[in-house]
Amino acid sequence: MRTPAGANGRRVQPMPEIKRQKTSARASMIVEHSGVIYLSGQVAEDPDADIQDQTRSVLARIDALLAEAGTTNEQLLSATIYLRDIANDFAPMNEVWNAWVPDGLAPARACVEARMARPQLLVEISIIAVGFAH
Amino acid sequence: MRTPAGANGRRVQPMPEIKRQKTSARASMIVEHSGVIYLSGQVAEDPDADIQDQTRSVLARIDALLAEAGTTNEQLLSATIYLRDIANDFAPMNEVWNAWVPDGLAPARACVEARMARPQLLVEISIIAVGFAH
Amino acid sequence: MRTPAGANGRRVQPMPEIKRQKTSARASMIVEHSGVIYLSGQVAEDPDADIQDQTRSVLARIDALLAEAGTTNEQLLSATIYLRDIANDFAPMNEVWNAWVPDGLAPARACVEARMARPQLLVEISIIAVGFAH
Repeated sequence: MRTPAGANGRRVQPMPEIKRQKTSARASMIVEHSGVIYLSGQVAEDPDADIQDQTRSVLARIDALLAEAGTTNEQLLSATIYLRDIANDFAPMNEVWNAWVPDGLAPARACVEARMARPQLLVEISIIAVGFAH
Repeated sequence: MRTPAGANGRRVQPMPEIKRQKTSARASMIVEHSGVIYLSGQVAEDPDADIQDQTRSVLARIDALLAEAGTTNEQLLSATIYLRDIANDFAPMNEVWNAWVPDGLAPARACVEARMARPQLLVEISIIAVGFAH
Repeated sequence: MRTPAGANGRRVQPMPEIKRQKTSARASMIVEHSGVIYLSGQVAEDPDADIQDQTRSVLARIDALLAEAGTTNEQLLSATIYLRDIANDFAPMNEVWNAWVPDGLAPARACVEARMARPQLLVEISIIAVGFAH
């Protein structure tokens, strides 16, 4: 990583490293910087499942990514939830979500309606969490 | 909070605490970590109000949450604004928003169209801000 | 910036500065805090261009803002991509996006459908990146 000199010639401080995991040409599933972890938006493995099964699949994938990043869902900062059909799927998604969130440790959250990359997908969740410093 | 040993047996540094306020099974209205505050997406108290009154209500709720977090709207980093009807409501929402943002201290912002949890809701705003370290 | 006393009378630590660039009444195009940079959602200069040209224009604007913030697209943490017509534009947008992302350095990403401030706009991208400490 480059550590350029500042405009005034003073030495610029070296920045904390960016650590990426599961990186493709398009996205890294996990990006960590200064102890904060950004996960790519997760969708269900089986896009033909119903909203509760899709939500369970999304949360299982998030659990797996958090584990790979060395953390857990007890360390969530923020969640952005996109639903394809918020009028019908808000309540059943919340049922699965609430059961998954550890007691007293819920993240900040926003939930809005949006279509996703494939038309059958019913839910996508983006997470920001805290890791453990090494 | 767990502070596990690293894979190589070295002691892992204790992480800065995550502080949550107004926490339910679903979400915390306020989450703070390392001086950065994440607010849950805020919607209007009265979902039958017009776009300007809904925007005023959302911003009043954000002001109240920022105060509970010990900060103000002079410390905003980022805002994501969802509008139910961006063609009609972008201009009147902006009028209220611009009046609320302190001079010279506007956050980074994105504004897109989306439906929210209840069909009458016209605007939802997610905020990231800076707190004061204790 | 105010550095108020804590509720218990202890001195509160001064916070790292928030640095804003290209600030209007509505938004700052660039906001930096503790080495993390938030860019406002970027849209194409020519809203009548096709999806690939709009994507190229958005990414050129992001490159210019990252340069003004003293960093580059090798330092991306997270990208949120909004497409007006995800069924038709996901693949051609990705082609341009993938070519722009430096090898092995892709950010965490979410991509959903949404309408933007002007009806012709086909893509908007919000970026969080890392700067160089001064």
